[in-house]
Formats: sequence, C-alpha cells, structure tokens
Amino acid sequence: MSCKVTFVPDNLTVTVAKGTTLRQAAAMAGIELKSNCGGEGTCGQCLVKVVAGAADAARYLEGNVPAKRRAEGYVPACRTQVAGDLTIEVPGFARLAQHRVLVEKIRKGEVLTEEGDDLVGRFGLDPLLRRVDLKLDAPTLTENASDWTRLVAALRREAGAPSLSVGADLEFLRRLPRVLREGDWNVAVWLRGWSGVGALGAAGRGASGNGSAEATFSDVAPKVLAVDVAPLAGAGKGLASASGSFGLAVDIGTTSVVASLVDLDHGTTLATRGTFNRQARYGDDVITRIIHAGESPQGLDDLNAAVVESINELVDGVTATAGVRATDIRAVVAAGNTTMEHFFLRLPPDFIRLEPYIPAAIEFPIVAAGELGLRVNPAAPVRCVPSVASYVGGDITAGVLVTGVAERDEVTLFIDIGTNGEMVLGNRDWMVSCACSAGPCFEGGGITHGLRAVPGAIERVEVGPGYEVEVATVGGAEPKGICGSGLVDALAKLREAGIIDRAGKFHEVDSPRYRLGPDGPEFVLWRSAAAAGGATGGAAGGGRRDSGGAPRDSGGAPREIVITEADVKNLIRAKGAVYAGIRSLLAAVNLGLGDIHRIYIAGGFGNYLNVRDAVRIGMLPDVAPSRYRFVGNTSAKGARAALLSRKAFEATRELAAMITYLELSAGRGFMEEFVSALFLPHTDLTQFPSVPG
Amino acid sequence: MSCKVTFVPDNLTVTVAKGTTLRQAAAMAGIELKSNCGGEGTCGQCLVKVVAGAADAARYLEGNVPAKRRAEGYVPACRTQVAGDLTIEVPGFARLAQHRVLVEKIRKGEVLTEEGDDLVGRFGLDPLLRRVDLKLDAPTLTENASDWTRLVAALRREAGAPSLSVGADLEFLRRLPRVLREGDWNVAVWLRGWSGVGALGAAGRGASGNGSAEATFSDVAPKVLAVDVAPLAGAGKGLASASGSFGLAVDIGTTSVVASLVDLDHGTTLATRGTFNRQARYGDDVITRIIHAGESPQGLDDLNAAVVESINELVDGVTATAGVRATDIRAVVAAGNTTMEHFFLRLPPDFIRLEPYIPAAIEFPIVAAGELGLRVNPAAPVRCVPSVASYVGGDITAGVLVTGVAERDEVTLFIDIGTNGEMVLGNRDWMVSCACSAGPCFEGGGITHGLRAVPGAIERVEVGPGYEVEVATVGGAEPKGICGSGLVDALAKLREAGIIDRAGKFHEVDSPRYRLGPDGPEFVLWRSAAAAGGATGGAAGGGRRDSGGAPRDSGGAPREIVITEADVKNLIRAKGAVYAGIRSLLAAVNLGLGDIHRIYIAGGFGNYLNVRDAVRIGMLPDVAPSRYRFVGNTSAKGARAALLSRKAFEATRELAAMITYLELSAGRGFMEEFVSALFLPHTDLTQFPSVPG
Repeated sequence: MSCKVTFVPDNLTVTVAKGTTLRQAAAMAGIELKSNCGGEGTCGQCLVKVVAGAADAARYLEGNVPAKRRAEGYVPACRTQVAGDLTIEVPGFARLAQHRVLVEKIRKGEVLTEEGDDLVGRFGLDPLLRRVDLKLDAPTLTENASDWTRLVAALRREAGAPSLSVGADLEFLRRLPRVLREGDWNVAVWLRGWSGVGALGAAGRGASGNGSAEATFSDVAPKVLAVDVAPLAGAGKGLASASGSFGLAVDIGTTSVVASLVDLDHGTTLATRGTFNRQARYGDDVITRIIHAGESPQGLDDLNAAVVESINELVDGVTATAGVRATDIRAVVAAGNTTMEHFFLRLPPDFIRLEPYIPAAIEFPIVAAGELGLRVNPAAPVRCVPSVASYVGGDITAGVLVTGVAERDEVTLFIDIGTNGEMVLGNRDWMVSCACSAGPCFEGGGITHGLRAVPGAIERVEVGPGYEVEVATVGGAEPKGICGSGLVDALAKLREAGIIDRAGKFHEVDSPRYRLGPDGPEFVLWRSAAAAGGATGGAAGGGRRDSGGAPRDSGGAPREIVITEADVKNLIRAKGAVYAGIRSLLAAVNLGLGDIHRIYIAGGFGNYLNVRDAVRIGMLPDVAPSRYRFVGNTSAKGARAALLSRKAFEATRELAAMITYLELSAGRGFMEEFVSALFLPHTDLTQFPSVPG
Repeated sequence: MSCKVTFVPDNLTVTVAKGTTLRQAAAMAGIELKSNCGGEGTCGQCLVKVVAGAADAARYLEGNVPAKRRAEGYVPACRTQVAGDLTIEVPGFARLAQHRVLVEKIRKGEVLTEEGDDLVGRFGLDPLLRRVDLKLDAPTLTENASDWTRLVAALRREAGAPSLSVGADLEFLRRLPRVLREGDWNVAVWLRGWSGVGALGAAGRGASGNGSAEATFSDVAPKVLAVDVAPLAGAGKGLASASGSFGLAVDIGTTSVVASLVDLDHGTTLATRGTFNRQARYGDDVITRIIHAGESPQGLDDLNAAVVESINELVDGVTATAGVRATDIRAVVAAGNTTMEHFFLRLPPDFIRLEPYIPAAIEFPIVAAGELGLRVNPAAPVRCVPSVASYVGGDITAGVLVTGVAERDEVTLFIDIGTNGEMVLGNRDWMVSCACSAGPCFEGGGITHGLRAVPGAIERVEVGPGYEVEVATVGGAEPKGICGSGLVDALAKLREAGIIDRAGKFHEVDSPRYRLGPDGPEFVLWRSAAAAGGATGGAAGGGRRDSGGAPRDSGGAPREIVITEADVKNLIRAKGAVYAGIRSLLAAVNLGLGDIHRIYIAGGFGNYLNVRDAVRIGMLPDVAPSRYRFVGNTSAKGARAALLSRKAFEATRELAAMITYLELSAGRGFMEEFVSALFLPHTDLTQFPSVPG
C-alpha cells in the first residue's frame, strides 16, 4: 500500500510504501534531518511532529525523545513508520542546515605545502588528461585509411613514436567521424597517458622492464587512451575554439567536500568551493552511514547519490565563479577516506565496519565521469587517490604526498584529526599508520554545546582570576556553541585554573559559573546579556538542554554555553585515543617521542588548534613547539597535485603500497596506552615534562 | 499528433506520430516487410492494404506498385504515411519470412579448414577469456589486505609473476566482496590476458620490446583484466559448481547471421545455429541500410537493434541445444563485413557509403556484452575481427586467417562472393584486396524468380537436346525459384545450348520454352504440372510477374520459373564485376592468371558453385579445376579460431594491417576490365582457352 506524506512548512509531498520511516520519507523529499545515531532511535535529533493523518496512520517504535519535546508532540522520524496518509511538520532545530566549510586559502596558480613547495614544480606539469591539437590530411580514394587509423597515425607522428599504442572506447569512435568532418580534419584530442612530443618514443617510457611500474590500475602504461575529441575552429561553423581543458580536484571529507577547478594546460587553480557532505542526512560518521548503506537495497545508492550531489553542487559553484563550462571539466581526481571513496564509486563498504575491517579495494580503476553521474564532461576520467587500509584513506595518502614525509631521512609524524584520528609515522625508508576513533567531539558532536567551526563557534577560551572567562569566536560573532579547538582550549584552561582535576572531575569552585546541572557539575563559559540579567538557576539549564542538543543556526541561539563533566570525560577519551595512537605507532617501530623530528597537523580542525593547549591536555606529544606544523587541507592539495601530475599520482600509489597499516584493535598495546592517557595530561607525567602536574 | 495503427491478421497495434510511414510502423510492431530498395518506393515489395481508417487517415506518396496489386488496393508501406488511426492488412507475400540458413557442418571439437587443419592445434588453445580457480586465505586483523589486493596477490602467486599487472572495472569490484564471502574465499575468476601458470612470469610476454606487439586495441598487453568472479561450490549455499566458461563465435553476414557456442576450456564446439539478419527489413544490401541509418536520429539504433536481436535469437537457440545457461557465455568474437561490424557496435557507417568511402574504424575496442545488449553474461568481453577497409571486412580477414593465405610462399586468391565480391590475392610477403559490387543477383535479388538458397531453390540446371531442361533443387523440394549457383549454371547451359549469344542476347530458338514476355525474350526453366496442363501463352506470363517478384514461402508457389533477357544481363554484369576485380588485383602486382597457385571460394554461395560453369561464363579464371577449393563459411571459422586463441586474434590484426586495399573506383583499370568482361565468357577469348568461343 502506498501512502502520501506531506512535509510542512516545505509543502513537499512524497508517495511511499507503508512501513517507510518518516526519516526515509523526508530524505526522499530532499529534507535533511539531523542525526548522530544514523537512525537507531537513540540520539533524539531527527524530531518531527505528526500534524494530520488518521489516528493509526503512523506507527511509533521505541525511540529516544527529550521529555519536553515529547510533551510537545515530537516523535523521532527514524522510528516512526508511515501507515497511512500523513502531514508532518519538520521544525528548524531538526534540520541539517547548510554550513560554511572552511576551505584553505590557495595562492592562485600554485599548489603549496606549508613549506612553500610548488608541487607542480616538484612533480612536473603532466596532467591526467592532455590536449593535443592535430591537423589531419583529408582522406582520398587512394589515402583511404579509416578515421581512427588516420587519427592514430597523426598522434604517432606527433609523439615521434611510430609504434605508439593508442586506444579509445566505443563512444569515442562513435563520435569521431562527425567531429573530424565538422572540424574539417582539424581537431583537439584529449588523451590519457600522453607525455608530449617525443617523450614516448625511443625512451621506452612505460616499458615493463622495472617491476615497480607493474601494478594494478597503473596509468603509466604504454597505452595512450583517446578520451575526447572536438572540432577546432576554422571549420567556421560558429564553434568556439575547441573549448578548454579543465580538471576538478575533490577532497571528499565525511563532513565537508571541497573542490578546486584547475586549468590543466597551465596548472593554475581557478576556483575553490566547499560544501557540507549531504551524506550527513544518513548519519554523522562513517559507521552509521555504512550501516544505512547495508540496511536496504537502495541504501548504498542513497549514500552514493548524496556525495555525487554534493560534488555536483561544487561543480556548479566553481564553474560559475571561473566562467568555465562544466563540460570542459575533462578530468577529476578525488581523495577521501576509504569509506568516502567507496561511497563515491558505489563500492560496497559493508566489510569496512565488521572485523577484520576489510575494504573492497584500496586502489581503484579510472571511471568515466558519466558513469558516476558527475555533471562534468561525461568522458572525463575520474580517479581516486589510493587508500592504505580501511581506516587510513586516500586523504591521508594525499597528505603524506604533499608533506613529503617519504622524502626525508628524519622521522615525521603526520596527523589528521577529525572524527577519526589518522596518523602516519615514518621517513623515506619506512612508514607505519593507524587510525584511532576519537569520536565526534572535536567536530562538536556529543558535546552539550558542541558546534562545528562555523561563525559564532567559540574557538578560544581564557580563564582569568576569580574564574572569569573570556571567549573568542570564529568570525567574532555572538557565541552559538563551542568547536573542537575551543574545547581543547577550554579543557586546558579549566585544568590550569584548577576547576577540574587530573581525571576530569569538577571541583566545587566558588563561582556563579559553577553549578550542578541536571547531568551533574557544569561550568558556564558564556551567557548572553539577556541570560546574565535573568535567572541563573538550574531551571534555565534544564530548559536549555531540552532545546535539542547542539545549538542551531535557525531558531533562538542559546542563552548560555556550558561545559559539563560529561563533556570533559568525552574530551578526555578523545584526546586519549589520539595520544595512544601516537604511542602505539612509536612502539611498533621501537622509537620514542624524542625521535620525532617534525609533526604535521592536517585537517580543518588542526588549522586552528592551539598546540600548547593540546600538549597540556595530553593529546599531542610534549615536544618543542617548533617541531609542529599546520598543513591545512592536505587531502585537497594532494588531489590537486595528483590531477596535475601523473608522476604525483604514481607517487600516491607507491606511498599507499609502502605505508604499513597497524590495526590497533589487533593487540593489547593500544588499549593499555589508551587507559594510561585518560588523565590530564597522562598517568605517566614523565611523558609531559613541560606540563605542570 | 499520435495515431493508432493496427496490423491484421496479427492484431498488433502501435501508436505512432503522424507522418510515420506504414513500413516504420510495421517495424515497430515487429512485422518485417520485404524490401529491395530500402524504402525508396521503387521495388514494389512492401505492399499492404489499408482496410479501415478515415478517408484521409493515410497519405500516399509516389511509389511503384504492380498494376494488378494496385487494382487490388495495395499500397507501398514505405511510401504511405499515417495521418490518423488506421487498420492495415499485411499479406503473406510482403512478409519477410524466416528462412533456413545453411550453416557449415562442423566436426565437434575441431575447427577445420578444408585442408583438415586443426586451427586450435595450429594456434594453441588460449581463449579470449580464461577461468582460474583460486583458494584465498580469509583475512584477519593482522592480514587485512583489501579484497582486491588479496585477489591480485593470489593471481600473482598462481602466475608465478610477483609484479603481474592486473586490472578490473568498477562493476567487478562492486561484486567482489559479496562473492568472496559467499564462496568462503574459494572463487572462480575469469580473466582476459591470462596465459596460465608461469607463462607471464620471467618470460616477459607482452613486454614492449618488439614493436609489432605495440598497436591499438591490443589484447596482448602486459595487463591481465579480471572480468567476472563467482563463488566456488563448497560454500554449500546451493550454488552449482561455479558455472562454465563458454564463448560465442558469430559471423554477421548481410543476409545471414551464424553463431557457434564453444567450450572455452576445451575448445570444443557445442552447437551452431543460423538465422537471417533482421536488418533485411531495412533493405537487402549494405548501402540501403546505411542510408536508413542516416535518415533519422534513431536510424542507426534500428540497424543495431536488428542485428543484436538476430544474435540474441541465436543465443537462445545454441544455449537451448547445448543445455548451457546464457550467462555462462563469457566471451564473444564476431566477424562481419565492415558495415555489419559498424552496425553491431553502433558506430556511424555514413562515410562508408560516400566517396572516398571511409569507415569510422577498422579495428575495435573490446566492449562488455551488456553494453551492446547481448543476452549473454553482461561482463563478457566482445571483440570484432579487424577489417581491412570499408568494403573488405573482418569476415575476409577471418577467411585469410583460416585459409592460411599469409602462411605460404605460393600466391593464393581468396574470393568471397555474396552481394559484394571481396577478394584477397597474395602470399606470406604481400597481400592485396579489393571489393567489387556484384549486386544482389547471386543471392536471388533483382532476378525475376531469384531466391536464396532455401529448400526449393533451383541450384542445378541441365539443358538437353531440343532445349529440354532438367533442374535440381535444394533439398529436392518442388521448385520455388532459382538461387545463385542455379543462375550460374543456367547461364552457362543457355550459352552452351546456343539459346543466348556471347552478349547475353536471346536467339529465337524453336521451343515452347522460348517466348516473348512482357519484358522481352525469356526462357521457361520449369513449369508446374498444373501450368503444363494449361495455357502456355503470354497471358500466364503476365499474371505471374505481377504476382510480386520473388516467389514466396507462404501463398501460392509460382506456376512457372523463367529466366529473362534482363536477368541474363544482370548476371553478366555481376560475373563481369567479379572477374574484373580479379584482373585488377593481378594487374596491381604485375602478375598473370598463371601465377595463381590456388583459389579459395568462400561464402554460402561458393559452397555450391559449379566451378566449371563459373569459368564457362567468365566469372572465375580459366585455370585448372584442381586449383580451386571450396572453404565454406570462413568468417564463422575465423571468428571461432580468434575466440579460442588469442594468438589467432592477434594474427587477424596483423593480417588486417598487412593487406593492402585497392579502391577499384580510384583508377580506370577496373572499368576497362569490367567492360571487357561483359561478354560470355569475355571479350578476350585467349583468357579462357578451355571455353568454346
């Protein structure tokens, strides 16, 4: 039986099968609901109200709803099934609002590491796809080679390689005859594997002599692939001069997706845009999304469509900014964690989640953009940067590439902290990696007033004499919540001020900011002028926390921002996991903290981290601050490098193969390190000589 | 405006746009109408009757309809447009009836040339696709390579080649995780480019050292491609033991399509079927079909769908015969003339028809069967045997392969006579080829009582004393018409008996069989008992020719079978074209008739040709009969060889590249030879010393 579900105030109606959850119905209507639990009914975020429909038109399963919301008639959309025609009201606080993604600043025309390296200069401009303009001789009765034979002969002449192997797919051949004649035998051809005049000739590049060049999905094969062809101007049929060659470098994060439009001929970056990953409607972290993907036959399609939709939105943005046609985007390189790359390519991610945590693949064939539904040139080759393992993805490989970890003798630690903390330790001779589940709190998840690094998020906290507090927010806006860097700061300062002890327990300090809230002790970091003028009692606190967890962009901003003892415990577990991961890597190669020559902090969170505070809480190693470097979004940078230089892409393949993956759950070492790290800064204070005990 | 057109007696209704022709509407309804002109309105074959519909519901354009049929209310379907709702009666005589295709007899388990060569033995059993069974180790927390990495490692071990390059497409990777676990890590993998244990190791097969291996669309590249994977029995989930490995070898002729089902593991042939090429509904010859393909946006799709439909019908047939599942057909090799290969791959054939006659391509990428709509395993690789030029196709390349023309020092002439006469002259050092348009008369087209070689077709004619005639038919059935070999025979015997002169003009011989028909002199080869008992005057003749041209399976059989002076002229032009082609090839390499060591006659027609008669009419060179060999359907044989042996396929690529194509219209030589050959046997009698002048 099919039922009509209408959502208000959007006034969108979808027809669904009986038994469909309201959450699924909302997703079908394009309405994105918040969720931390991925539809398990536990997080109480996806609340909606049934405003019309027969008494038995909705079936309610067990699900967690805050008491106040329950009294107001809210139900969890993920646990409410459609049983008849319904009208559903979706409140602002349950909607997943768009948020600004902080994209790294890019100096136009260069791909820079934090060291100022010019990656294009380092690897050479040799993009995934190259354009070659050809002037062919028109055929005659006696020079009557086929269209394809004629094109190949011209390419061989151009390359100076008479036996150059050239291929194409059927779609290319289907278009070729018309294009050749439209261009009056003058055409632009876009090629994969092309290295320019003479480069593929006697030098024998790609010959299979050296074993290392022989691997799966290699692009550096002797074969050149013709990908697209267009008539050149001169045919005078109003054709623009054969259109440009642009590429898209994409960083697919669990939370955000960032794309850069680059000019393949010149290596310049024309525009960069970020957006939030629309997969968030299916859960905040990779695990809940993998569960969704496996729950129904179209689950994986949902996740795939969501990320493709996110990228397409970025395509619209960067092409509009740069004034470039989307069909002139002719090559795409994407980097993301292993799960994101699986979703992007619609590969089954199920076994990533289940012990022993096996991905379908860690390197991937080149696919035509049209097959993936990307709104760029349908023939554009799309590649993903290779991953290392289930929880160390192509984003990390890209980071290791751009930071040059594998190019130095000295030992480097590379860390990308987000929901997961991924890290690589090593030098030119060896590299080990691991991933530790830091949980969502550094991205604002599971924290009373946690918020992503959007304007209004508290990013700096100072606790002065008499427990007075000063906060600074992203963009200087009125505080709306607190983000990862603010939380690290707050934890360090609360400890410094003696408000919490080494285990994270609150002392009953003498301040109106300290109080016993409904969930235990808490400390008020900020209160609005209105709240400051009014009551400061527990009732307001109760009302606040019932207002639905994380603050929201729409609806009223919180009147107070607090940090609770439960928040502190969450943060200690998160920082402990990161530190235990670092210790486990060091232990695996028998090195100590002193052997780390440099530490790279990557990721959006890392960009704003106060290293001194991160060391004080025992999250990062207590080494000289001069050894730390912030490297920003190295995943996006690496994708761009791999797009502009086939050598760089090959390097990511070699890196991915070279990095040893340490599965932390395989031994007892990590758990012991983790337990030791559940103090501020640590059980073993000798590891933090610079931190007061 | 859309109109309903109902066809009776089929009672099939289609909805079409106003302006659609009845012929197109019939095609949409799946009703195949006869046509020699491809919808030009000139042949008067596709006759139908408008039996209901408003007075102005059909719009009649100019079109040729025999007077009698016109009086009966018939209209040409190709020249009648729908202008409203209509009911249309399709008479039996206008329908393209199914006919039996004469398929060569194949000794089970061997691919034989006429010499008794075992091609599999000659090239080695190394099929396009190979199955390898693998037992993988299950992953653990410490042995946690990705599924694909694990599979590649096992293949490398199996091959004894630690750096073997292996690839797969996304669809393979999408299925891999489930299949590995269903089979409990025991799987069968189907591979392209796999040459067995150890074969790809140190030997470095496919290394790019030798230039000749480097070419477009080579299969012998260093890369092994995983095409399909299935769980092996033992998982105990009711799976049959991982299914078989079968291949389909297809000969796509303009008139007929023949397919053989082969066992890829053993090289045996399990079943062979033929059917007529459903493209016939769009015209009898390649030119009218190319015109149809270019006439409308979906024209090429029509032609493509028709041939794919024909092949799918054969798939149903051979799989039913052999008791094999269609999804176990995992590789396909097809050979056909260049136009047929274009239609099969949906490549635009337009410029094949227009001077200077350029095909889109003469070699073709490997495509997945699913992309082509073939009803076999969708992942099955499909390749076409390379063509030489627009009018010398993959069928000829296949023929040169199986007859070993390029393996001998002596000069061989290979001829395939159908609508076109294609021929190759050469030896191991050189080969030249050409195509001459013989016209459709050897396949029964354009001849008063012409008929394909179906049961009832006259294939032998003897003219005795007093102009008495004896005929023999295919299958010994009651005569229904006369096929190519019968026509050659008739021409020779009429000349021998002095009924026609050297120019093909009839003498007024004293026999009731000779008479002046409505189109000039004619000779009655056969008359039915009923006709023999009745009148023998001109009136019966007139009635006969009005009955719609070629005889038909359904409806009344002809009461008389005649050959007219116009038929004779047609035949002389056809035989003259063949002979002039042979002379042109010889002239191009400065050789004479005496230099030809052997002559291979291929094609269905060739199988039944009386060589003595063919020489007598001046179609074939007057050399010792012992030099002639009939080799049957070498296109089908070659496709089978190329499917079972990658080396054989590579040989076809080398042959196609080696054969020089001579465009006969490029110089005056052919036309001079042609004019000289428009006599029986020839203007220059010295070329036919054995034939009485």
